[in-house]
Amino acid sequence: MPVASIFSTVQEDLEKVEAKLQSIADVEYPVLSALLRHILNTGGKRLRPALALLSAKFHCYDLETLIPLASALELLHTATLVHDDIIDNATTRRGASTLNTIVDGRSTILIGDYLFARSAAFAAESDNLRVMKIFARTLTKICDGELRNMLGSDDLDHTRREYYRKIESKTAALFVAAVESGSVLSNAPENEIQALVSYGHSVGTAFQIVDDILDFVGDERKMGKPVGSDLRQGTVTLPAIYLLESRPNDVELRRLMRHHGDFPDREEGIKRLIETIANSSAIASARNEALDFVQQAKKALFVLPDNKYRRALADLADYVIERSS
Amino acid sequence: MPVASIFSTVQEDLEKVEAKLQSIADVEYPVLSALLRHILNTGGKRLRPALALLSAKFHCYDLETLIPLASALELLHTATLVHDDIIDNATTRRGASTLNTIVDGRSTILIGDYLFARSAAFAAESDNLRVMKIFARTLTKICDGELRNMLGSDDLDHTRREYYRKIESKTAALFVAAVESGSVLSNAPENEIQALVSYGHSVGTAFQIVDDILDFVGDERKMGKPVGSDLRQGTVTLPAIYLLESRPNDVELRRLMRHHGDFPDREEGIKRLIETIANSSAIASARNEALDFVQQAKKALFVLPDNKYRRALADLADYVIERSS
Repeated sequence: MPVASIFSTVQEDLEKVEAKLQSIADVEYPVLSALLRHILNTGGKRLRPALALLSAKFHCYDLETLIPLASALELLHTATLVHDDIIDNATTRRGASTLNTIVDGRSTILIGDYLFARSAAFAAESDNLRVMKIFARTLTKICDGELRNMLGSDDLDHTRREYYRKIESKTAALFVAAVESGSVLSNAPENEIQALVSYGHSVGTAFQIVDDILDFVGDERKMGKPVGSDLRQGTVTLPAIYLLESRPNDVELRRLMRHHGDFPDREEGIKRLIETIANSSAIASARNEALDFVQQAKKALFVLPDNKYRRALADLADYVIERSS
Repeated sequence: MPVASIFSTVQEDLEKVEAKLQSIADVEYPVLSALLRHILNTGGKRLRPALALLSAKFHCYDLETLIPLASALELLHTATLVHDDIIDNATTRRGASTLNTIVDGRSTILIGDYLFARSAAFAAESDNLRVMKIFARTLTKICDGELRNMLGSDDLDHTRREYYRKIESKTAALFVAAVESGSVLSNAPENEIQALVSYGHSVGTAFQIVDDILDFVGDERKMGKPVGSDLRQGTVTLPAIYLLESRPNDVELRRLMRHHGDFPDREEGIKRLIETIANSSAIASARNEALDFVQQAKKALFVLPDNKYRRALADLADYVIERSS
């Protein structure tokens, strides 16, 4: 099912989120305004705002606080991408030039900070202390994960545990924040909030595994970035972990995967490795693991009343694994 | 009066703030821990936490929420300095190496983000929605000021207005946040909160003017950075504005002050200009302007009961103009 149909029940509210997001580009300086619009318009599918909106639908909520919250989540996501792209030296994202290729690093840092700030200000408009705490906790988790990613050991034997810790802070935390704060703002009972937290965690995890699979087998045009970016940066994701597990004694493979390794002609080796993984059972194994998370996510929803919003959340879980970009 | 005597009435609480600040360095990675300690220990006089603590003293407060808030303010300040130093390519601050000279730019960005995140998490521990809103508003104001600074026009005719706008977002906003959130947490009546806001704004403005004066006439060893840094970066501060006003037709001077100007042998020109300003009446004029703000600050305090905390706040206003580093 295309994502637009899944979101149809919250389409009107998503348009309000879009307008709220675009409002941050109404600034005094035309250059800054253009840059902010560029970042906002190369944005993704607004999954996180949609999750917050859908999660609020089971009880009563005030749109005046829900729209800023949903917008805050997307801005927080965008801010982390802006800083990630400087840090990773990425040149394209979703087919468009990254901010750091358009302006200098100094401006990119500041614009990222500005997005963080506006995101916090939007979250404060939710007028809800628990939501503000969720927001602060999530921001800490994301930054903590980034630091772990940069400073963590290169030890491939701990990779699977490290991989799931990284997913938790990089992706799942923000999915959880979306569903948790959406349901908190609708004054949902605690058991429903916790069911959605569990859903958000599983869907977020599945989403990132699929992202990592697509980095090997995705269509470069649809993805808007070259395949194999992760391995090239020394990031070992689930498909690569499966390959490593199937070849426990392959010393060459281990040397190649280490970012700071001394493998001769690394780029050639990486290219071969990407092909090897793409054509191996590692992809199917990783996809099965993602599917498990999708099943868990859908199971968590049983606590909620069976209505079109619950069905949309279940469809979204399916979409996460079916998507091709 | 030395700053330690002024802070004596809140010394015990300041030590709790210090312990709270140091707690952010308790992280898994020894390298990160060492870097965080380096940043925290080259910290300044903890003026912002002290302002928050003193402002809470007029009514009842809970130390469990006040200490995190006071710590959040210092961390927010520290986070902005870390990103400022990458942006300005600064090598020393308060006599110590800046983070960006110790680790690469990527790590510096992430560590700055981490400080922002921990700062937001500490602010959330204040358990007070109004405080969270003050925090978000202040963060936005600071980032907005930074962007204005980078993108603003080079038009020297608007400089005085621009100068005060910049001070407002760069320095005064955080002083205001400190006194406002401190008094909010003590459940002070609104007229007292507003008196402290007015005090914070005036003291913050005076503080920055004095900073800018010291950039011309300060002792490099005490300051821990070379004199004239502002002019060298094309930042026109109050002493330079006084000189510009006294020489309205000096085209050479204007060309030299413009950061992107085509002045031949700019460094030589800047050095002469620093000497000219340091020995001119511009310094005394700027100091008088700062003194006006100090008087306004002390006047604002009359709304509060006359006790040792009010006297400490008044002494702090005097200290701001008397300090030499």
